[in-house]
Amino acid sequence: MENPIFTHRSIRKYKSDPIPEEVLQRMLEAGLRASNTGNMQVYSMIVTTDPAIKEQLAPCHFNQPMVRQAPVLITFCADVRRFSLWCRQRGAKPEYGNFLWFVNGAIDAMLAAQNVILEAETQGLGICILGTTTYTAGRIVDILHLPQGVVPVTTVAVGWPDEAPPLTPRLPLEAVVHREVYQDYTPERIDALWAEREASEETQKLLDINDLPNLARIFTEKRYPGKDNVLFSEAYFDTLKQQGFFCGSV
Amino acid sequence: MENPIFTHRSIRKYKSDPIPEEVLQRMLEAGLRASNTGNMQVYSMIVTTDPAIKEQLAPCHFNQPMVRQAPVLITFCADVRRFSLWCRQRGAKPEYGNFLWFVNGAIDAMLAAQNVILEAETQGLGICILGTTTYTAGRIVDILHLPQGVVPVTTVAVGWPDEAPPLTPRLPLEAVVHREVYQDYTPERIDALWAEREASEETQKLLDINDLPNLARIFTEKRYPGKDNVLFSEAYFDTLKQQGFFCGSV
Repeated sequence: MENPIFTHRSIRKYKSDPIPEEVLQRMLEAGLRASNTGNMQVYSMIVTTDPAIKEQLAPCHFNQPMVRQAPVLITFCADVRRFSLWCRQRGAKPEYGNFLWFVNGAIDAMLAAQNVILEAETQGLGICILGTTTYTAGRIVDILHLPQGVVPVTTVAVGWPDEAPPLTPRLPLEAVVHREVYQDYTPERIDALWAEREASEETQKLLDINDLPNLARIFTEKRYPGKDNVLFSEAYFDTLKQQGFFCGSV
Repeated sequence: MENPIFTHRSIRKYKSDPIPEEVLQRMLEAGLRASNTGNMQVYSMIVTTDPAIKEQLAPCHFNQPMVRQAPVLITFCADVRRFSLWCRQRGAKPEYGNFLWFVNGAIDAMLAAQNVILEAETQGLGICILGTTTYTAGRIVDILHLPQGVVPVTTVAVGWPDEAPPLTPRLPLEAVVHREVYQDYTPERIDALWAEREASEETQKLLDINDLPNLARIFTEKRYPGKDNVLFSEAYFDTLKQQGFFCGSV
């Protein structure tokens, strides 16, 4: 069995076959076993298979086809609600409606997500993480009926792969690893770290399609333009407030 | 080879043996292979082995003994700096100094962290996640020389286990999984989900030690008291601002 850590590719085309319940259960059990904050498990996993609900979610994920195509979507949420309800029911006074506990919940959610992803891949399934979840979190809250104390952090599409893409190139390891303390980047080092990627055929193709002089401008002007970043930041922050992570009421 | 996903325990006692460089490299490579936002890799891993720096970090982690004892500490950071420097160097205008990109960076950091953890465990190493990182992020920024655009999200202590603790009990899977949409909790369900944990010998011991009538109050009064949550929230939020995640200057 290959270790899925080293063979992971995002899969964006899926067969229509469903995921057997026992396979899904084992994936979710993998999530349950992840480390989490104080063993308080301040996260939730929403498993959506109903085509009608996936149809509602599709625009939240910019109508990427895998949202409708993948048999299962799992929305990972920071969730202090379950824990806070339990506290109140025991006469304890929870105070998790604040920014720290959003971050703790997001950490728990992501550790669980990666376990679910790796177990899915071990079972031969393919996955794609939908980063759009933070852009449209407010609408996802409505569609998935998320109550106070619950905020979506990421969504994973899961299904049987109907494509076999190559491994995605990464920056060299030394780009993301710092020894002892942060080793800040010189202009020469920045050039060296991106050299291979900038010189690739893939990049050349993108430059031709986008009619732009370099890869950086494709990111800042096409993929993640500044105006969107600011708008989505404000919207996500508003969703956090709306869900009770800044008023201490959760 | 056992799948470390299902056998994970946090290890809090380590042998003094160092981690061979090739083992460490493979762990870090595992982190590099994780999914990340737009393949922009907006995270960094700071690998600290120098006893003098670990000594400085120890109070940031409330002097938990594993900080000094573990041969390696890895601080996972949200990091938009490298990407933004590259953009500027190419005449592109990056705009990642905002809340959305802190969240994206934290997501990338946590996906990488869980890969590093699982690969470490595959190699026979033990780990412990230090949730204290978000409490004292401002001091960690200073000690690890983190520049603008970089914020610590979590720290993982890694070393050869010198203890073999049992598997930690979790709430049943149905506590954290919701089918189709969020299924809110009734008081009866809350009671049922916590029943086994509340009735355990472990809980009884904690109640005796803490002289409190129930487990929930141990969490709200001893482990994660309200006042601390509010103070740490404000401090972490201030660190985000200080590192440029709310002024658009990164």
